[in-house]
Amino acid sequence: MCAQLSSRSHLLPESPFRQLLPYAETAKKKGIDVIHLNIGQPDIPAPAAALEAIHEAFYDKLPYSHALGIESLREQFAAYYSETSIKVNPADVVITNGSSEGLYFVLFSLLEAKDEVLVFEPYYANYSGFAVMADVTLRSVTLHVENNFDLPSSEVIEQSITPKTKAILFTNPCNPTGRVYEYEEMKRLGELAIKHDLLFIVDEVYRVFSFGKACPSVLEIPELRDRCIVIDSISKRYSACGARVGTIVCCNPLLLTGIDRLCKLRLSAPFVGQLFAQAALEDTSDYIKKVKKAYQRRRDLVYQRLTQMPGVETYLPEGAFYGFVKLPVENAFHFCQWLLEQFSHQGQTVMMAHGAAFYLTPGMGINEVRLAYVASEERLNQAMDCLEAALQQYPHSTLTPVIAHEAR
Amino acid sequence: MCAQLSSRSHLLPESPFRQLLPYAETAKKKGIDVIHLNIGQPDIPAPAAALEAIHEAFYDKLPYSHALGIESLREQFAAYYSETSIKVNPADVVITNGSSEGLYFVLFSLLEAKDEVLVFEPYYANYSGFAVMADVTLRSVTLHVENNFDLPSSEVIEQSITPKTKAILFTNPCNPTGRVYEYEEMKRLGELAIKHDLLFIVDEVYRVFSFGKACPSVLEIPELRDRCIVIDSISKRYSACGARVGTIVCCNPLLLTGIDRLCKLRLSAPFVGQLFAQAALEDTSDYIKKVKKAYQRRRDLVYQRLTQMPGVETYLPEGAFYGFVKLPVENAFHFCQWLLEQFSHQGQTVMMAHGAAFYLTPGMGINEVRLAYVASEERLNQAMDCLEAALQQYPHSTLTPVIAHEAR
Repeated sequence: MCAQLSSRSHLLPESPFRQLLPYAETAKKKGIDVIHLNIGQPDIPAPAAALEAIHEAFYDKLPYSHALGIESLREQFAAYYSETSIKVNPADVVITNGSSEGLYFVLFSLLEAKDEVLVFEPYYANYSGFAVMADVTLRSVTLHVENNFDLPSSEVIEQSITPKTKAILFTNPCNPTGRVYEYEEMKRLGELAIKHDLLFIVDEVYRVFSFGKACPSVLEIPELRDRCIVIDSISKRYSACGARVGTIVCCNPLLLTGIDRLCKLRLSAPFVGQLFAQAALEDTSDYIKKVKKAYQRRRDLVYQRLTQMPGVETYLPEGAFYGFVKLPVENAFHFCQWLLEQFSHQGQTVMMAHGAAFYLTPGMGINEVRLAYVASEERLNQAMDCLEAALQQYPHSTLTPVIAHEAR
Repeated sequence: MCAQLSSRSHLLPESPFRQLLPYAETAKKKGIDVIHLNIGQPDIPAPAAALEAIHEAFYDKLPYSHALGIESLREQFAAYYSETSIKVNPADVVITNGSSEGLYFVLFSLLEAKDEVLVFEPYYANYSGFAVMADVTLRSVTLHVENNFDLPSSEVIEQSITPKTKAILFTNPCNPTGRVYEYEEMKRLGELAIKHDLLFIVDEVYRVFSFGKACPSVLEIPELRDRCIVIDSISKRYSACGARVGTIVCCNPLLLTGIDRLCKLRLSAPFVGQLFAQAALEDTSDYIKKVKKAYQRRRDLVYQRLTQMPGVETYLPEGAFYGFVKLPVENAFHFCQWLLEQFSHQGQTVMMAHGAAFYLTPGMGINEVRLAYVASEERLNQAMDCLEAALQQYPHSTLTPVIAHEAR
């Protein structure tokens, strides 16, 4: 026994964001400059006022906070979410150890073991692991880059709703595609949730980063008030992934009672991260506006470069800071590994996350990758130079020489 | 459905440390000074050098660390644990969001659902909740204050080992009793673990706080090298419960592979908490020595006061900062609530955790409480004044007037 893992441990997927890290380390040891587009770790500095708050606040110890979060922080978040049309009270906001914990707490406390959760693939790859932890089953509806990742008709979606389905879970703007689902699309999904009595769980960690049209919060839809749950985090919007401060927002007090017990069990979210969050929410500078502009410029750059590469199929992301791209390769995982192990271009290479991990359906995403725009425009251009050169050199390209020639 | 919690949510126990907080809030609003001995939140300032590190370090964002923890911190911890007789490598140390997460990760990744874990009651109450989260079953062997919480004979312990038992879990020094289990006792338990092929999980978060005899780490027992797992945390020893930095130490690489995936899934432990931990481990002042002395003085004070109270049965704790006490009351939960709702003594009252939550066996601990010595000697004296006066006034005392008289 002491030489065994549990069977459920074997069900936990490998992280597509970190699985290739050992190869990246080896590349770095060879002197290669690895441009990391594999993980959504923002490179942009955090709000100065929030960093100052950590440096300047007085604390002579690092205490537990209230299990549900520092009360004044919950008040600040309630005010922030009340900018939507649903009035959010401090009691409706729970501070979690990042959105990761929030998502797990929601799945564990609101679903029975073996219940089903409807997701749209490609979806945030870690949902698969949280489902294993909470012993629930994901069931997916496939979206396609060719259709701009549009949601299919309600009839098609309903084909994946079974008597075991208890929740819809999705990210808006979508990680990994960057697609923004607008008010009417959300509402249509919401009608399905009402019809089939499903929880409506929306991961809104990228909501402030939408380019062009604004990304609506599910809290804008009063009909969903009692069944919607927002999963959120300060990680992306304030470049504070290591703060480990997320939120669960839920205006149905009964649904929060199980989450309350889980919070008390793990005692506290991080104290300093919460101080940082307080100052970030108080910050009246135009930090978010500037950051959004930076991501938009990067998106434009990467999109433009990708569209010039023969055989690459892509889509203009409307939000978040990811691109999800079909490459002219047989196997994107192998290609990503090859990029780290056997390739370099002017001393550089690029690390990306392979697409299959963002799908439930076997065989899907096999030639796709996710890129995170978390590097400067200069570095992103270098990363695109690498990708372009690599696709020309890669021995398992699916581009026929003729097509490759024509495309040039 | 949207008006329901999952059945497993209902299995999560209420937190005995926080369950009565609403009553404490009400008492405070009435102007009563509530002395909090209910939760193990140290009041002693954290090491100055570690706080300075947070204030002075340069960071322009709060990034994810490596999923298993900042590498140099894992090296520091490995050196710290290598002071025992087992050589610990950085790869054997995983940084967790406090010991809470560590314990859950161990139970989830190493046990099958419905496996049994042997514990000694009274045990740290939150183990019950982590067992629900990991879908494993606790089975307990009862220890008694009358026997100084000695472990029973191996034969008696074996009566609680079934074919489903896959692990022994205990805290040393014990939370809630303060009992320190010595090398020979650990070794005897370890023999049982080897005989029945059990994992040996030891929660050592209070290990530095032992008064008199030193508390051995399980890492001192080479025979257990491949099956022992240490759960640890900086929360208590550096007054940093809100840092959310714990460790799992395990020298069997296979056992860590499941934990590795869980860590990657939740991405990162808190960044600033890890900076704090690095500086705390580097601190060469005699901080721990001083803090230990302070807790020892408090223990002596509380023990001496308790032994003078009629009908109170107690035991001299050898470590940690708790006392576990039998009171002359019918129901300690009711008594603790009454202390907050209906009692005050010179404008003060005391909050404690009720004992039943530290037992698995129904009916056990019903007249017991846990007190945490996390207040100054002056405040502890005031708390004892409150307790003494309360036991005389409490209408459901089990002290007969004659006994009460005799005891005086």
